[in-house]
Amino acid sequence: MTASRTGVTAPTGFRAAGFAAAIKPTSSKKDCALVVSEAPASVAGVFTQNKVKSATVLWNQEICRQGTAQAVFVNSGNANACTGEQGLRDAEATAERVAEGLGASRDNVCVCSTGVIGVPLPMDRILNGVDGCLASLSPEGGADAAVAIMTTDTVPKEASIEVELSRGRVTVGAMAKGSGMIAPNTATMLVFITTDASIEPGPLYSLLKQAADRSFNCICIDNDCSTNDTVLCLANGLAEAQPLMPGTPDYAAFGEALVSLCQDLAQRLVRDGEGATKFVTISVSGADTDEDAKMIARAVAQSQLCKTAFYGNDANWGRIACAAGYSGAPLNPDSLQVWLNDIKVMEDGRRADYREEDASERVRQPEFTVRISVGEGPGQAVFWTSDLSFDYIRINAEYRS
Amino acid sequence: MTASRTGVTAPTGFRAAGFAAAIKPTSSKKDCALVVSEAPASVAGVFTQNKVKSATVLWNQEICRQGTAQAVFVNSGNANACTGEQGLRDAEATAERVAEGLGASRDNVCVCSTGVIGVPLPMDRILNGVDGCLASLSPEGGADAAVAIMTTDTVPKEASIEVELSRGRVTVGAMAKGSGMIAPNTATMLVFITTDASIEPGPLYSLLKQAADRSFNCICIDNDCSTNDTVLCLANGLAEAQPLMPGTPDYAAFGEALVSLCQDLAQRLVRDGEGATKFVTISVSGADTDEDAKMIARAVAQSQLCKTAFYGNDANWGRIACAAGYSGAPLNPDSLQVWLNDIKVMEDGRRADYREEDASERVRQPEFTVRISVGEGPGQAVFWTSDLSFDYIRINAEYRS
Repeated sequence: MTASRTGVTAPTGFRAAGFAAAIKPTSSKKDCALVVSEAPASVAGVFTQNKVKSATVLWNQEICRQGTAQAVFVNSGNANACTGEQGLRDAEATAERVAEGLGASRDNVCVCSTGVIGVPLPMDRILNGVDGCLASLSPEGGADAAVAIMTTDTVPKEASIEVELSRGRVTVGAMAKGSGMIAPNTATMLVFITTDASIEPGPLYSLLKQAADRSFNCICIDNDCSTNDTVLCLANGLAEAQPLMPGTPDYAAFGEALVSLCQDLAQRLVRDGEGATKFVTISVSGADTDEDAKMIARAVAQSQLCKTAFYGNDANWGRIACAAGYSGAPLNPDSLQVWLNDIKVMEDGRRADYREEDASERVRQPEFTVRISVGEGPGQAVFWTSDLSFDYIRINAEYRS
Repeated sequence: MTASRTGVTAPTGFRAAGFAAAIKPTSSKKDCALVVSEAPASVAGVFTQNKVKSATVLWNQEICRQGTAQAVFVNSGNANACTGEQGLRDAEATAERVAEGLGASRDNVCVCSTGVIGVPLPMDRILNGVDGCLASLSPEGGADAAVAIMTTDTVPKEASIEVELSRGRVTVGAMAKGSGMIAPNTATMLVFITTDASIEPGPLYSLLKQAADRSFNCICIDNDCSTNDTVLCLANGLAEAQPLMPGTPDYAAFGEALVSLCQDLAQRLVRDGEGATKFVTISVSGADTDEDAKMIARAVAQSQLCKTAFYGNDANWGRIACAAGYSGAPLNPDSLQVWLNDIKVMEDGRRADYREEDASERVRQPEFTVRISVGEGPGQAVFWTSDLSFDYIRINAEYRS
């Protein structure tokens, strides 16, 4: 693997491309991406829970049910959501154009969109984008593809990881986009993972779901769950390694690598959150169950008042306690303990003995951890969140116009 | 009733006062308020659902269980929340000082606090505030009291209404504060309602709960449910009118007046929301049940992306559809219709035929209605919300420091 084979093209047998097709007429950035496997691959996907789904989500869910895919085409600039029958026809026509170019089956081509909702795809430019990508596919094309899927992201997000198996080695690569409409279940974003591991679609889905639950479903920028959230994983089996069978150490090792890769990407999504100036880890322990701990962590991670306090360098643990209190999880207020990094600010439900300047110094950092203990139970959870800044408002008040 | 007997002092037999006690040492505004009934009154209360409750909420809940109160003391500048045993003792000592001054029972004195969480009450100044209020009680004191309970509010909020009964007439007066930490169940705020009607505590609670559900539980500024939310109603029976008995037309008329008064105040809380520049009504119809409709209305009312779009004059109905889709309520995306005032922007799940400038013109107004129809069902709901602006961030990033 050379240094230039990054992201989705890091594993054996994947090519990719990015192309500028002016999906938004005023934009000259790359806005179409294509990822292609040399051979048909096992595919699994995790999708938005929103009842209003992009046409592309419906299309990809069908492909994941079948279990085989060979390519993923992505456009930014238009979400192809709330576009009715036309949206479904457009997704199909896009897949067909990709399939023709590759000599593959239309039913093995995933199609993803991200951008403004409610505007039909500009199909002439989309098809031009398909052709442009097909013409520039390359084993070094991962970086271009990662740029092409960006919307309000400020940096492209690529990752790869190698996993030593008992015999042989496999590589997992990925790219991700998303910095607004980020909320748990699923965080709003597109994530594409490729691997040269050999694994059946069912087991691949189990590992992907587990990884998403421990990464993309534990982050929060705003609280809006989009119409287009998608995590897709293609496994083409082209590495020289034995197939991954559930219940084996290799399978577990691959699963852990997938979690690690997804957590890395999820944290980078938060760091690049719209207007974010802080990266804050919310760690909850002592709850009765992990689910209770997650409710508390999520409430704090989503609280506008906590997030504006983080932005304002304000060690306002009262807002943290308040959010924990309305999370819906069982809670004894008199057992609440809160730390900002190493500084205990709340003890047994009231102010701990600390110096305000010490606490302020902690929240002034670009990264810090809010640790919350709610009792003696075994339940714990971690969430990653950003602060809420002026720039979030600027970006989202001006985004569409 | 003269023009100067406003708000909580509008009904017969109530006096009030506001006093500047420097609860926040740097502030010279009135920050203590006292409302007193000439005679012990029936009392009912609706309180925060937060598991982390102010000591004052626990104190008032106990008084409401007993059903009789004669006075309400309120301080702004400090929430007396997360203050442990000390907080309870301070609430009790405050009530005691009021009771001594009035020659009343300590157990008939409600105590409310609003402001920063986690700091013990400055009891010397609180008791000084009690004395100052006692010395200036007046039948014209409603306006001063309404100013004294403000925190980040920019205008005091008073209201009164007269209700003609079959024999006689009663008056209901009120004051409210709250512009941040506003979320349904219960919106974060303090509301004090007085009336000279004669009504038992049980029926009074039923009517108050109904009014709160149709007003304060249908508003949203941010999504944080505070530790101190309180709606208290005192009915002293001093009007020359017969007692209100459940099941009678008079009881119903009084209940409707209470709803109307609470809706008026709730809408004014939203209009004065932190940083709010828009007042937006979210009206949902066609759901299977009222509860489903409420879930959808709440999701749209709370959505940061919808609220920033409102702020940005962006007729971004895609974000509205998106929020409806993740609300958790059953929803057929193809049945979604959305109007901005009179302009239909979404029809059968996709863009309706409208001119963008017409839709933009509607959301550019300081007040407009988002009407959402999700099907043919009987369920409907209305929510009132604000936009999310730069000033919200400024206020909340800087509030405590």
